[in-house]
Amino acid sequence: MSGPPSERTKVRRVPEVAEYDREAIDAVLDEAIVCHLGFVQDGQPYVIPTLHARVGDELYVHGSSASRALKIAAGGLPLCVTVTLLDGLVLARSVFEHSVEYRSVVVLGTARLVEDPEEKMKALEAFTEQLIPGRWADARKPNDQEMKATWVLALPLEEASAKISLGPPDDSDSPDADLPVWAGNIPIKTVTRPPVSDPALKHDLPAPDYAVRYKRPGWD
Amino acid sequence: MSGPPSERTKVRRVPEVAEYDREAIDAVLDEAIVCHLGFVQDGQPYVIPTLHARVGDELYVHGSSASRALKIAAGGLPLCVTVTLLDGLVLARSVFEHSVEYRSVVVLGTARLVEDPEEKMKALEAFTEQLIPGRWADARKPNDQEMKATWVLALPLEEASAKISLGPPDDSDSPDADLPVWAGNIPIKTVTRPPVSDPALKHDLPAPDYAVRYKRPGWD
Repeated sequence: MSGPPSERTKVRRVPEVAEYDREAIDAVLDEAIVCHLGFVQDGQPYVIPTLHARVGDELYVHGSSASRALKIAAGGLPLCVTVTLLDGLVLARSVFEHSVEYRSVVVLGTARLVEDPEEKMKALEAFTEQLIPGRWADARKPNDQEMKATWVLALPLEEASAKISLGPPDDSDSPDADLPVWAGNIPIKTVTRPPVSDPALKHDLPAPDYAVRYKRPGWD
Repeated sequence: MSGPPSERTKVRRVPEVAEYDREAIDAVLDEAIVCHLGFVQDGQPYVIPTLHARVGDELYVHGSSASRALKIAAGGLPLCVTVTLLDGLVLARSVFEHSVEYRSVVVLGTARLVEDPEEKMKALEAFTEQLIPGRWADARKPNDQEMKATWVLALPLEEASAKISLGPPDDSDSPDADLPVWAGNIPIKTVTRPPVSDPALKHDLPAPDYAVRYKRPGWD
């Protein structure tokens, strides 16, 4: 986001963890595999997990053209997309200060339905390449029927904020620091295991290098 | 959930992945560390990551009594809590069939503010013990001021559904199966690394066993 946060994206609680610069926001969006899309129907909020891809100043989400969520989201209604990366558990001396290390991004806005075939194909390439870099070149590309069955929505990253909370417990300068209680962090990582070939694979093909050495931006 | 799904929690897309029995729902809720809480303010949906604890037929969320989200959530407005576990990437022969392995739960309802001090303390114990089993006995318990500063909300698990999508790609019985393209899964795991002591720790204490051997329900 360029400029100061909007009234709606301003982080009110614990503002020292807030980040509004696009570099911090993009890093979280690009590392995460899954986002949570929030929309409202008949006053009821719904939150659904889905995949996302960031291209420049927009965040794409996609799904079946038959999806209720996508239909609602494409209708110009206000949306919220939230991405959360969990980095650890924070064990303080007091129960009260227990917490987690995390990095999260909240994007508010309305979505644009991507209808231009060229942009849509580029967006699908971005989904594939951001999910598994290298895969687009190997897999069969979408045909006309599949393109019709897929909706792609673009949400501008204009109203976005990140919260980044990392580091040791907060209570080391409180009276609790004298308590004989171990305090520290348990780091959490998302990792992959060696690829598993489809048992129905007809050809004697090894798993490609991008599957064996799978890594996301930001991973060690 | 006992009985059939409500109109609102019925899984419409790809209904074969839907699960409505409480055992499946509870397993996902209990393994996950983070949930995403959705609420509506002035027609705008907000989705925020937070911690949860399931106790019997209710899902607790908690936070600061100064939190906007908690205040709105406690006001009897409709909420949605979604929990997602990511288990792998699914590499099909076609771009179109690429997907992820996941287990997710969606809970709809309105929350009850937990005001009874005994229930509230039990809920805080559940948060601590479900985040780090064994920790409650070691850490300093909440005092009156901390209890006042914390709000606990309880959401009934009456209107809940799970979606579980695991296994190899779907296109092994399509014409794509003949393509000379590797297909299969890249398993994803959440793991912990050895605990890191707070650099400000005043006592020479080893990390407790529950931190060294950290494990969640459902983990290998």
